[in-house]
Amino acid sequence: MSVRTADSLPAQEVKAGTGTTMQVLIGSDQGPNFAMRRFTMQPGGGMPYHTNAVEHEQFVLRGSAQVRIGNETHHVKAGDVVYIPAGVPHSYQADEGAEPFEFLCMVPNQDDVITIVEGEGPAC
Amino acid sequence: MSVRTADSLPAQEVKAGTGTTMQVLIGSDQGPNFAMRRFTMQPGGGMPYHTNAVEHEQFVLRGSAQVRIGNETHHVKAGDVVYIPAGVPHSYQADEGAEPFEFLCMVPNQDDVITIVEGEGPAC
Repeated sequence: MSVRTADSLPAQEVKAGTGTTMQVLIGSDQGPNFAMRRFTMQPGGGMPYHTNAVEHEQFVLRGSAQVRIGNETHHVKAGDVVYIPAGVPHSYQADEGAEPFEFLCMVPNQDDVITIVEGEGPAC
Repeated sequence: MSVRTADSLPAQEVKAGTGTTMQVLIGSDQGPNFAMRRFTMQPGGGMPYHTNAVEHEQFVLRGSAQVRIGNETHHVKAGDVVYIPAGVPHSYQADEGAEPFEFLCMVPNQDDVITIVEGEGPAC
């Protein structure tokens, strides 16, 4: 299928996160080089400080969050572009409020390894 | 820079199109495998029927358009996901109305060749 409505695609819980689901919008079975996923984090939800073996190219669709990347923490919002290089630790903490934090996250079609950074406490 | 606001990034006119601009959100100088661009087509604008040497992974941010992909024409709108395989001819015709048609378009970091398909008339 060339065209699909993102809302119609299945969502799966992200077990390493809190209040976080992920949809594969274009998977490695369709795109030969990289995949497009959409993450939705409920207000107050997020992902703990962790690393990935692959880089992330992200675009924020709605809501806002504190995003820590290495030693910097950014407040990101709809319309922001986020680049997280491979191997750089990062976390997400969706802002409290009515609106979920939603973003696209593109990754290359390469094997990924997710490693939680211990001793860093909660997600942000 | 890890985080940038898309609206702050420079836009360039897409000469093969009509009323169409493009911003590089994450370029090949930053992302090692693929680039993220944002296209904005004014109401009634678009791109004529053409091919690219690389595939497109797209997400519609706002507005709506007629998008022809090969022999099929789709009416796409905000929240839709579009996949255009390498080499498949396609065109865009933004709907008339108040709102521009805006979408993200991710492409691999490979040499691209754009070829207009002659004799197909206007963009759609």
